[in-house]
Amino acid sequence: MTRRVETTFATRYAETDAMGVVHHSVYLVWYEEGRSAWFRDRVSDACGYALFAAEGLNFAVTEARSRYVAPARYGDLVTVCAWPEAIRSRGFTMAYEVRNATTGALLNAGQTTHHGVNREGAVVCVPNRWVARLWPEMT
Amino acid sequence: MTRRVETTFATRYAETDAMGVVHHSVYLVWYEEGRSAWFRDRVSDACGYALFAAEGLNFAVTEARSRYVAPARYGDLVTVCAWPEAIRSRGFTMAYEVRNATTGALLNAGQTTHHGVNREGAVVCVPNRWVARLWPEMT
Amino acid sequence: MTRRVETTFATRYAETDAMGVVHHSVYLVWYEEGRSAWFRDRVSDACGYALFAAEGLNFAVTEARSRYVAPARYGDLVTVCAWPEAIRSRGFTMAYEVRNATTGALLNAGQTTHHGVNREGAVVCVPNRWVARLWPEMT
Amino acid sequence: MTRRVETTFATRYAETDAMGVVHHSVYLVWYEEGRSAWFRDRVSDACGYALFAAEGLNFAVTEARSRYVAPARYGDLVTVCAWPEAIRSRGFTMAYEVRNATTGALLNAGQTTHHGVNREGAVVCVPNRWVARLWPEMT
Repeated sequence: MTRRVETTFATRYAETDAMGVVHHSVYLVWYEEGRSAWFRDRVSDACGYALFAAEGLNFAVTEARSRYVAPARYGDLVTVCAWPEAIRSRGFTMAYEVRNATTGALLNAGQTTHHGVNREGAVVCVPNRWVARLWPEMT
Repeated sequence: MTRRVETTFATRYAETDAMGVVHHSVYLVWYEEGRSAWFRDRVSDACGYALFAAEGLNFAVTEARSRYVAPARYGDLVTVCAWPEAIRSRGFTMAYEVRNATTGALLNAGQTTHHGVNREGAVVCVPNRWVARLWPEMT
Repeated sequence: MTRRVETTFATRYAETDAMGVVHHSVYLVWYEEGRSAWFRDRVSDACGYALFAAEGLNFAVTEARSRYVAPARYGDLVTVCAWPEAIRSRGFTMAYEVRNATTGALLNAGQTTHHGVNREGAVVCVPNRWVARLWPEMT
Repeated sequence: MTRRVETTFATRYAETDAMGVVHHSVYLVWYEEGRSAWFRDRVSDACGYALFAAEGLNFAVTEARSRYVAPARYGDLVTVCAWPEAIRSRGFTMAYEVRNATTGALLNAGQTTHHGVNREGAVVCVPNRWVARLWPEMT
């Protein structure tokens, strides 16, 4: 089974809205934080995701889903857990869970699907050496 | 058939990311703009959605889905089209299409599902008089 | 005297914070909207600011100041008024006022200072033909 | 001399803009992170700033200034250093420095000024017991 990577941080005041809770669009940003942490873990490198970008490879989002279970409030510590759910030649799907880091309560769960794109935005296959490094258990 | 409401605006520089395109989390904010426009249209009132809030009724997001078809860039005019897809006693689902307003090309499509919550965040039925005003064709 | 350009839009729910008012960081985004409108007006072109970018010229922010007078709330119509306050060979300062579009009340006033940078981020003089087009009254 | 509090985190992809650098409005959000860390440190409490809010006391921003020295990029670790620069009966000024945590290079410096407001948004004096706890060296 593929490794799950967790990252924990405090919610920001700027992320709250007039209902007094974290705005629902922020969870997509937190997923991205979880995804970044997963990439950093996998490529054993502080740069992580930036390595692909340096080669002109990016992973554009083609789909996102988010299910909101309970709200987060200013100052709450939240943990984003991220793991790959599916890998294809041209892309992958990551899954996420967001929990209150203090109580463990599930706040949100979701997925994002990505495909590789080059600098011009055209869809490209993910090079084999990246697949081998990112998802060795899948090859 | 229920009315679709369109709202058109220019993308903001702050909405772009290092790929040079609008960040994928921004589409949820644009859906909210589309939803706000739909509510303003339906309650025939500049306040629109704020009217519910004034009564302590809010519509929390319970689910969001977004499918990304083509990118938007800084300065593009985009049109968000919003309409209700399903209505239930405790909530509703809105659907959205985002198009490049100049070319008409589809950029993104999605849905958000909402339920009514009171000031304390508890799930509540949407009062009948609001249902009658918001979705007369559904009653 | 140089022309002031106004742009009016509704505040977004995502822009509010847990105090129920628009978050103070959003005013810098609104200044950018005002600046974009001023550029579009001046270059008589839908592209506006994007024209510089296409030539590899950008105007990086070197300083920003903002004075908060009264809060904006969700659904308020606000008008951002923008005008150039000073022009130098390597950059310029824009000034802004943000008002409630309904009442005319002043909400915020500020300035941003910019210098020209090329694609590599190095400071460059603004080409004369751009100066002539942007600030004819200053030349 | 009053204590400076540092907080370090990685920049987020969503914080970048089409110039490939962190958008200038984000620094106000980072100042808020620095301010939150300073408050948490001073009240020796995970809640920190939330304690005031629970009593109906908030510190609204009345002025912000930011000077941009060098850009931050996606994945950079940044350190925000925050400290109080001036304290008055109705408010205070905080100062900030943002540095690249790896190289130590100064990226940005700024200040925010705040006054106490109650739940209705009226300006109020900061209660003495809070002043004593927050700025003991100033009393």
